[in-house]
Amino acid sequence: MADAATKLKDLTPSAVHSAYDLIKPYVHRTPLLTCKTIDKIASTPQSPEALVGTPFEGHTPAQPKFRFFFKCENYQRIGAFKARGAFHGLIRLIEELGEEEVKKRGVITHSSGNHAQALALAASTLNVPAYIVMPEISTPSKVSGTRSHGAEVIFSGSTSTEREAVVADVQAKTGALMIPPYDDFNIICGQGTTGLELEGQYIETVREKPHLSIHQGSEPKTLDAVITPVGGGGLNAGVTTYFSDKPTRVFGAEPSFEGADDCRRGLEAGERITTVKSLTIADGLRTPVGVLNWMVISDKNKAGGVFAVTEEQIKAAMRLVLERMKVVVEPSAVVGLAVCLFNEEFRRLVESEAKDGWDMGIVFSGGNTTVEKIGMFFS
Amino acid sequence: MADAATKLKDLTPSAVHSAYDLIKPYVHRTPLLTCKTIDKIASTPQSPEALVGTPFEGHTPAQPKFRFFFKCENYQRIGAFKARGAFHGLIRLIEELGEEEVKKRGVITHSSGNHAQALALAASTLNVPAYIVMPEISTPSKVSGTRSHGAEVIFSGSTSTEREAVVADVQAKTGALMIPPYDDFNIICGQGTTGLELEGQYIETVREKPHLSIHQGSEPKTLDAVITPVGGGGLNAGVTTYFSDKPTRVFGAEPSFEGADDCRRGLEAGERITTVKSLTIADGLRTPVGVLNWMVISDKNKAGGVFAVTEEQIKAAMRLVLERMKVVVEPSAVVGLAVCLFNEEFRRLVESEAKDGWDMGIVFSGGNTTVEKIGMFFS
Repeated sequence: MADAATKLKDLTPSAVHSAYDLIKPYVHRTPLLTCKTIDKIASTPQSPEALVGTPFEGHTPAQPKFRFFFKCENYQRIGAFKARGAFHGLIRLIEELGEEEVKKRGVITHSSGNHAQALALAASTLNVPAYIVMPEISTPSKVSGTRSHGAEVIFSGSTSTEREAVVADVQAKTGALMIPPYDDFNIICGQGTTGLELEGQYIETVREKPHLSIHQGSEPKTLDAVITPVGGGGLNAGVTTYFSDKPTRVFGAEPSFEGADDCRRGLEAGERITTVKSLTIADGLRTPVGVLNWMVISDKNKAGGVFAVTEEQIKAAMRLVLERMKVVVEPSAVVGLAVCLFNEEFRRLVESEAKDGWDMGIVFSGGNTTVEKIGMFFS
Repeated sequence: MADAATKLKDLTPSAVHSAYDLIKPYVHRTPLLTCKTIDKIASTPQSPEALVGTPFEGHTPAQPKFRFFFKCENYQRIGAFKARGAFHGLIRLIEELGEEEVKKRGVITHSSGNHAQALALAASTLNVPAYIVMPEISTPSKVSGTRSHGAEVIFSGSTSTEREAVVADVQAKTGALMIPPYDDFNIICGQGTTGLELEGQYIETVREKPHLSIHQGSEPKTLDAVITPVGGGGLNAGVTTYFSDKPTRVFGAEPSFEGADDCRRGLEAGERITTVKSLTIADGLRTPVGVLNWMVISDKNKAGGVFAVTEEQIKAAMRLVLERMKVVVEPSAVVGLAVCLFNEEFRRLVESEAKDGWDMGIVFSGGNTTVEKIGMFFS
């Protein structure tokens, strides 16, 4: 295996294009949606009251201008972008070791979330056995969802030590090959295909309906900016990689609750933060950013920075998407939109950098929630 | 004005085509979606336990086969199909009386629901004043939604006598012209355009992706069947009218709670039921079916029949649509799907009439709900 520096060098837009060629038959080209009402709300200054208690209290609220293009990975297979990385990781493994070897040994991962179901789906599609190590406390629907794709679920304790012991045990017995959830070259390239599709669909959309762009009349080139959630960082690192040779600025978004904004804090401190213990409702973003992903996201030549939002702001964004767009998203999916709507630091940046405003891609990362959870969030 | 029998005679597919030509610039061609998971669930027999306490207890559960094509009017303007009828009603009024006259007098309706917002939108689009009579107990979001389109909201008591007195009063002062919510020739033709689009999109979809049809391989002609909710009956009568010269069978769906299945009961009794007092969660369907609509829906040469479902069945269907399709619908929107999933009488009919199964259009009528309501339904 090449070391991290070599892998980082190889994380290029063309690596994302290669990933796309491989996974295209297996993933959905998810829809790109727009919503005038949300554009209008985001392009209206916040009320002065909304800034009370923030560093911007007493300042004139910023008036950035946005046109959003929502990349709906909640409509991706298994309901989240994770299907992209999982298929890419598995296809590359088969390329490297041969089909027979991979089918004999199987693949393994530890995840209680969308990566578990994504790998289970990829493995069953390509006829490879899959072992998924999940914490005993996982919700039954996630366990049955993973099993429904034919994967074998093995339970472990909730700590990383307990989890790794179970993984090692299964690997010793089966020889199963690890496909990690985010901190991995092939996973990053797979998730980066979200950015590739987003850009292509934006250009198509604006060519067909020029009034949807904030730069009406000029030939659309690419998006001004994109924002994605940052949990382990695979999606953001992949999308940042894809746009790294383009003028598009790629930002990250995190929940601030109980320090889940580890990536943002790490950037401030100049060092990656390695542990997070947060119960933010954005449960896909409770993970510290991975090593390789950190290298990409902390590279100021590539990435635009990471901004954080509160639980209430996440809920307010989620309400808008459910009630106005009639689209079901999970809380993790809307942190980027919440930044655009409510993070005054970010809104000032957009106002000062973009006179005309921005055509902005927003990645809705997934939609795996339940009606009970929606009820809990808003009760 | 022609009498009901004449109007009934004029309710033809070509009247729906004419309506479509007029409203096309103003309404969305809403998406047609499919969902393998829901097809699979609906094509699996119910458990014998599910039939306990029903007339089918002890019988072998039916095994109908379905491929569903969901016509998503929740993505229509103002979030419901009602925009179609309201635009058509207003355009015809202008045709009939002249622009000047209609602009001088304005239009009026009574509605606490989607028709209020639909007429407000149509009127503001065509620069006509609109007066909307709403019960004092209307939820503030519906009142502000109606006002946001520039309509004047006038409050009344909740009984039909109180409401009609207020309407008469406003009409006496302004000369405003009534555009009724459902029991009206032009409204019916407007709502019928939902069926026209549904059929066209079905044929396009199946031509492009033949595997989505249950009749793979044969050239797609039209849908085998369609089901829509029945409240006042404008949507169902319109869709029934559109398909009346085609082999497609059109069914209606109602909630059974507290007798909201007035149309189904009326068909059984051979006479229209004229009052309904139900607090079903399908709040768009608390209305008795209108006179003209009844004439269409009770005509066995045109309509396939009406079936009812319980509150729990409506919720179960709503859960599937939100969690699996990631699409936000209001309870009224899913009664048709609930019939296909849970009404054993209907499922036996499909099983016995269709060996191969049915390609079935399901109209999701609207998506105007809130996260709080979703929470209440599932708490």
